[in-house]
Amino acid sequence: MTDFLNETHNPELRSWVGSANVAGCDFPIQNLPFASFKRSGSSEPMRIGVAIGTEILDLTAAAKTGVFSDQAAEALQAAAQPTLNALMALGKPCWSELRLALSRALREGAAQQSALQSCLVPQAEVEYALPAQIGDYTDFYTSIYHATNIGRLFRPDNPLMPNYQWVPIGYHGRASSVVISGENFARPCGQIKAPDAPAPVLAPSKRLDIELELGVFIGSGNTLGQPIPLSQAEDHVFGICLLNDWSARDIQAWEYQPLGPFLAKNFATTISPWVVTLEALAPYRAPLERPAQDPQPLPYLDSADNRSHGALDIQLEVGLQTSQMRQHDPKAEARICRTSYRHAYWTMAQMVTHHTVNGCNLQPGDLLGTGTLSGPTLDQAGALIELTSGGKNPLQLPNGEQRTFLEDGDAVVLRGWCEKQGFARIGFGSCWGTILPAKQPI
Amino acid sequence: MTDFLNETHNPELRSWVGSANVAGCDFPIQNLPFASFKRSGSSEPMRIGVAIGTEILDLTAAAKTGVFSDQAAEALQAAAQPTLNALMALGKPCWSELRLALSRALREGAAQQSALQSCLVPQAEVEYALPAQIGDYTDFYTSIYHATNIGRLFRPDNPLMPNYQWVPIGYHGRASSVVISGENFARPCGQIKAPDAPAPVLAPSKRLDIELELGVFIGSGNTLGQPIPLSQAEDHVFGICLLNDWSARDIQAWEYQPLGPFLAKNFATTISPWVVTLEALAPYRAPLERPAQDPQPLPYLDSADNRSHGALDIQLEVGLQTSQMRQHDPKAEARICRTSYRHAYWTMAQMVTHHTVNGCNLQPGDLLGTGTLSGPTLDQAGALIELTSGGKNPLQLPNGEQRTFLEDGDAVVLRGWCEKQGFARIGFGSCWGTILPAKQPI
Repeated sequence: MTDFLNETHNPELRSWVGSANVAGCDFPIQNLPFASFKRSGSSEPMRIGVAIGTEILDLTAAAKTGVFSDQAAEALQAAAQPTLNALMALGKPCWSELRLALSRALREGAAQQSALQSCLVPQAEVEYALPAQIGDYTDFYTSIYHATNIGRLFRPDNPLMPNYQWVPIGYHGRASSVVISGENFARPCGQIKAPDAPAPVLAPSKRLDIELELGVFIGSGNTLGQPIPLSQAEDHVFGICLLNDWSARDIQAWEYQPLGPFLAKNFATTISPWVVTLEALAPYRAPLERPAQDPQPLPYLDSADNRSHGALDIQLEVGLQTSQMRQHDPKAEARICRTSYRHAYWTMAQMVTHHTVNGCNLQPGDLLGTGTLSGPTLDQAGALIELTSGGKNPLQLPNGEQRTFLEDGDAVVLRGWCEKQGFARIGFGSCWGTILPAKQPI
Repeated sequence: MTDFLNETHNPELRSWVGSANVAGCDFPIQNLPFASFKRSGSSEPMRIGVAIGTEILDLTAAAKTGVFSDQAAEALQAAAQPTLNALMALGKPCWSELRLALSRALREGAAQQSALQSCLVPQAEVEYALPAQIGDYTDFYTSIYHATNIGRLFRPDNPLMPNYQWVPIGYHGRASSVVISGENFARPCGQIKAPDAPAPVLAPSKRLDIELELGVFIGSGNTLGQPIPLSQAEDHVFGICLLNDWSARDIQAWEYQPLGPFLAKNFATTISPWVVTLEALAPYRAPLERPAQDPQPLPYLDSADNRSHGALDIQLEVGLQTSQMRQHDPKAEARICRTSYRHAYWTMAQMVTHHTVNGCNLQPGDLLGTGTLSGPTLDQAGALIELTSGGKNPLQLPNGEQRTFLEDGDAVVLRGWCEKQGFARIGFGSCWGTILPAKQPI
């Protein structure tokens, strides 16, 4: 094994929680992602749990059993809270000790089984909240395919900005409107101006879109004024979730000059409940795909490690379920995109280092979006505006419906997973949202 | 008096704290702004206080005296914390009751004098922290003069974007790097590309600038999906502080396309410790200056009240102190700008309503920057890039020095105050920051 793999990645490991050993399960013992949950409809406080098969190990309950010791016990104490922020702040060695202790305690034959059995809660019986209090949310733009596809719609002859291959472009998003999977929201209203209209109108967005992204949760932060070098960047990352950065393209087109997207994005950003740790993702590292003929990054964004395994091969797909589909089958959906995070032009480590190169401080629980993760081919595009060439070529859905942008009642689900010869398959669960009809504009 | 004035605005009121009655004082009894403070160098927890003359009334101590009752006592309990967030969340009627109770208790002849005397701490003996935990920071662009001056540098023939007169343009800023007055910071490094250079370099910014702004603190928030109508917008505003949105123009020029400013801004944003409440500012309301020949706002951004008194005549100035000035006189400074908030094209209420028109939720403690508050003439410009025409015409300082952009050791101070015939003068205190030399780039 290479130095970033350890016994927790062994594909032979099996758990005493039987559902974790079922082939195709998102949450085998090699995964161990974190979420904030409580029993559905209860008045319990939210608490942190770790997924194992179809169950959740309640970490607040587990901390009370006394079966963990040393640094793992300290980490469990920090995790016995409604959000992950305190555990995130403890830093990588502590996260790693906790992972090892949980892996050992959940294995077949573990002495801790009898104590921990009563700390399990079925996933089917819970509701989730945001896993962390998000101080700041930054969204990047790390897919060169997305940047080129979008740029082509606005500037056919010169789609890619001259800074793109030098700067990991990012901008600040809205933290308050990040919501958890399953929280539905109304189609937003905003100022929209038709190209030939003399003035804008206030109206519901007609070009409501998705953006298939991953969310990178910062664990330990940095002090204001102290940049994080590339060699240390990943030590500051706690884990990754799925992220849908809903976008109202008509509002965006009218408002975004000169300071960037604002109301086109900040009505809702949906994330998955489960945060998969960077350590769990270690087996699925991949080389950076940046072509040799492209300008190479400035030294602060370049290293041999980043080139050889800075990327992550996280498989991604987007499903669309229309009202009509739902009427026939509550589980029906059409897959509209299939891609992988490995195609990103800028890595997670480059995002962290670039974000802090001017001294900007990151804090535990901060969220970095990767930007829309479109791959090199059209069916790998992570937004409807790309998949439909700006709304000109509707998607043909299997049930005969068509879509350019989202209609009321449409539900969108993101899924992610990793698989690789010689390793277990691990998954991210899903990230859902349904579009409700617009309210009357104010 | 009009309906937004009351006995607390009476210019005849005098306080038993003698320094509050001195002419020209920023903090007479008609002001009563809030800050978070502790005794300098002590290990005390931060706590909320109200300025009165050269003193601070410690609200945690005042709450314990038992001399307040009913809603004022409830408000004081919420204010007995390190930040204003809990008081902000209580809403306008509660803030108003507290203001009235404090005004009565601090007046000459008040029965509460003997109990409250021991709750005073001299301002000269304290240090300040951020007055609120800022969840999200949004920066607007409400001066049409600033937008035009900046636009002219990039697009001489067409300086103002077509959306400007319709959309109160704003974008998300970085909350984590908002710092309190007096916290100095190093000149930021970042990617900079000379127009004729084939590639960017990582280097300290050479075009470090200021932005003279006001910061609007949100008090009570709104639920996600529930816009705030213009008629209610000001009920959600707790108060206003001074804000310097430091900007690295060379980093900005290279990074800002297509998603807006990012590292050019998020290394530091400085605010003043004192938050002046909207109620204290009521006498200084002014009509909106939008010319009749300009397109009038869409109905959701327009009202008779907003037109007749939606603006605020807050006088503003910027002082610059170079190292050389400081050597001769620690108090020396050159005034480089003098303007008023009344020239803003979009009002505070319009910012709040536009921000939420898509359902975006604001929360207690959120901060809205007004954007650079340049007035109609060149000496009223609130940024060096405007004052020096993009660095081409250096400012001549009284001691013989010149400045285009900021040099290491330069300190910048913002000041604000209101004065009007028949009312007391009230002030915002000051907002300072000093530029330290850049650190070695990573």
